[in-house]
Amino acid sequence: MGMNPLSSPLLSDFYQFTMLQSYLEQDMQETAVFELFIRKLPPGRNFMVAAGLEQALDYLENLKFSSAELDWLATRFHPSLIDYFEQFRFSGDVHAMPEGTLFFPNEPILRITAPLPQAQLIESRIINLLHFETLIASKAARSVLIAPDKLLVDFGMRRAHGAEAALLAARASYLAGFTGTATVLAGAFYDIPLFGTMAHSYIQAHADETTAFAHFAHSNPDNVVLLIDTYDTEAAARKVVTLAPKLTADQINIKGVRLDSGDLTAHAYNVRQILDQGGLQSTTIFASGNLDEYRLQTLLSAKAPIDGFGIGTALDISSDAPAFDCAYKLQEYAGKPRRKRSEGKATWPGRKQVYRYYTSQGEMSHDIVALAENDPYEGQPLLERVMLAGNRTHPKIPLHDIRQQTLAGYTHLPKVMTALETAFAYPVTISTALQDLAKQLDAEMMTHL
Amino acid sequence: MGMNPLSSPLLSDFYQFTMLQSYLEQDMQETAVFELFIRKLPPGRNFMVAAGLEQALDYLENLKFSSAELDWLATRFHPSLIDYFEQFRFSGDVHAMPEGTLFFPNEPILRITAPLPQAQLIESRIINLLHFETLIASKAARSVLIAPDKLLVDFGMRRAHGAEAALLAARASYLAGFTGTATVLAGAFYDIPLFGTMAHSYIQAHADETTAFAHFAHSNPDNVVLLIDTYDTEAAARKVVTLAPKLTADQINIKGVRLDSGDLTAHAYNVRQILDQGGLQSTTIFASGNLDEYRLQTLLSAKAPIDGFGIGTALDISSDAPAFDCAYKLQEYAGKPRRKRSEGKATWPGRKQVYRYYTSQGEMSHDIVALAENDPYEGQPLLERVMLAGNRTHPKIPLHDIRQQTLAGYTHLPKVMTALETAFAYPVTISTALQDLAKQLDAEMMTHL
Repeated sequence: MGMNPLSSPLLSDFYQFTMLQSYLEQDMQETAVFELFIRKLPPGRNFMVAAGLEQALDYLENLKFSSAELDWLATRFHPSLIDYFEQFRFSGDVHAMPEGTLFFPNEPILRITAPLPQAQLIESRIINLLHFETLIASKAARSVLIAPDKLLVDFGMRRAHGAEAALLAARASYLAGFTGTATVLAGAFYDIPLFGTMAHSYIQAHADETTAFAHFAHSNPDNVVLLIDTYDTEAAARKVVTLAPKLTADQINIKGVRLDSGDLTAHAYNVRQILDQGGLQSTTIFASGNLDEYRLQTLLSAKAPIDGFGIGTALDISSDAPAFDCAYKLQEYAGKPRRKRSEGKATWPGRKQVYRYYTSQGEMSHDIVALAENDPYEGQPLLERVMLAGNRTHPKIPLHDIRQQTLAGYTHLPKVMTALETAFAYPVTISTALQDLAKQLDAEMMTHL
Repeated sequence: MGMNPLSSPLLSDFYQFTMLQSYLEQDMQETAVFELFIRKLPPGRNFMVAAGLEQALDYLENLKFSSAELDWLATRFHPSLIDYFEQFRFSGDVHAMPEGTLFFPNEPILRITAPLPQAQLIESRIINLLHFETLIASKAARSVLIAPDKLLVDFGMRRAHGAEAALLAARASYLAGFTGTATVLAGAFYDIPLFGTMAHSYIQAHADETTAFAHFAHSNPDNVVLLIDTYDTEAAARKVVTLAPKLTADQINIKGVRLDSGDLTAHAYNVRQILDQGGLQSTTIFASGNLDEYRLQTLLSAKAPIDGFGIGTALDISSDAPAFDCAYKLQEYAGKPRRKRSEGKATWPGRKQVYRYYTSQGEMSHDIVALAENDPYEGQPLLERVMLAGNRTHPKIPLHDIRQQTLAGYTHLPKVMTALETAFAYPVTISTALQDLAKQLDAEMMTHL
């Protein structure tokens, strides 16, 4: 149809188009400033990890209407709107926190400065991208912080919500410190290390388990990780021990075994003993099967001898918090700050910057949300300009480098915030100038009502 | 890169490729039968609604490797595997429950019969598609059954997990009985009715609310639904009443108002009264803002005068159950039934059919899962052949028709199963022949261990 599902400007809410029709008729094309922020943390969380900026900038740089899209719109909207779309390119500025930045409620992670119709049209997809990758990076960070020395692999593709979710979950979890993913296309697109072994069907398709193991090892000599829970885990571990010398004769090394069901702690202890007694001390144990950061914590507390984990569904759907409360709100139009005052949903007006402060030991101590201009603070400013007049101002950062920066960022977290339970509300204060601006706008509004 | 994220055969798990390498080396290309089923219902659920078959068949019909994909694979796998992929087309058969069919644990909703490497390679994406659309259709059905006479609109794009999730959530919820969606591209792709009004930013960008309303009405005279909660809901409703006669003079009718925050019941009562007293009895009230089927039930119990609902995040992420436990398992290979016996994950072997029985009043009474061959029952067989040797056997069913069939299907549910709480476990029995087959395979297995 000439519409790319991943980049089409029609991947948006219908109201963007009805609003744009009105904005153009009224010639309301002055500069608007929108900011994306979260209202509150999901229950049990101590921080969020910003992610998705790369995909958002790609979207903005390449946004245009195909002839198929214009034809479709022409049957539903005014010719003047279609004319506008024909020439449409995003020409605004973008300020953002770099991917991997830790952030908190009320802190803008992205600011769009553009003519009102442009800034409005992009809302739905910008939220869609940043919300999802931030969701997954924030979820993944929990496993990384709980199990910093373990191999962690994204196994979630099959229950991720569609194709893009699978790909971006692989990216976001790697960005947050995972070791790799099982999703091949994510490896191809983002150069993320790939991991994978075999399914139960592979074992079942063979007449017996040992033959299945031997075939796999000969076909994949550099990646011999054998799934041993299809019938009887300990029995299979003994078959692995028996098979090992024959493979060694062919210079094939059994890298690891995988457990996928039952009491993982008990099986891991038993299997470790069987492998060790069989001379396979360097064969690792990898576990999977309905894992999440809580089960990791339990397994680690029990000192289960497991070297790596495949985390699937719980990661890719962010099981404890499959969405979070974020908003993309108009903060300024035509040079005038704006404030939404809906019940329970009031926003801080104006263009903002976030400043971060650290203790002398390098621990994060607090943040200040201030006005972006004429309200300077000495802390570390978290938002930087990443796009000017529709063009990126910096080269793309390699994903591996973002991952390293994210891991470095974790080292500044107060220790108590690395736990799986809520530690304390990290202090985020609103600058006096920003509070004064909000009061002033409220007062003006009262005179209007 | 010459890889389409939505249709690439690389959108799969790495282990499919390592397994295929072994299958080809061992020439294990005999016919395999895999079935997709759920192990248990999510908590609080009474049934699931099958969806996603259309996308799965599209995927299978068009599956092939691009030269970029072959090049990428060639650096990682044996030349024999690359040769195989060059010629790769899916040539298998597919049996499935039609989209919209209500189903239960242990019932296959899809059966793939194909050479083992083919049936294996497609696993990850087939689950990815059917799991997600079934997830959303099953979630949407709950709102449809609770509020059968209300306008229900999918508002979830921004917090759906990526682009494809947004599109398929719109499709699956419409299939399950929703009235429409706000996602424009879903309207363009699937011909789903589109709904949308304005954002708070639209109101904020104007100097005052009445001007914003008037501008919108003149630009969108056929779709005047005004958002009235930006500042003060009741005050805005009075502005709507004041504005109405001026719009009537221009032959513009105010179709509705939208509430998006605060106590929706109280606001709806107040606004209904203000509108009625102002002569706007036919102006409808539409509500949105963190709604799900439970809040709908509360609003309906309170008899809140609301005519339609926009359901966003809770629908598109299936908030109470963002994933369900489904599996795609090898049930037969080379003419021999297979059974996985992993702890807590054992499967029923062989090719299966599901028969449904109804009471004389047309109510669903029970299902029987039987062997597909030589195990006939008189009930309604739920699986039908939809693909033969890689080609669809039926024309595509228009989405509107599937939706009608789904709605018709709900009328056969026992009344108690239409509630939001678990009613009772719908009886699904396993045929004697199937139980005997499982026992026989277990006995054979014991002799192998």
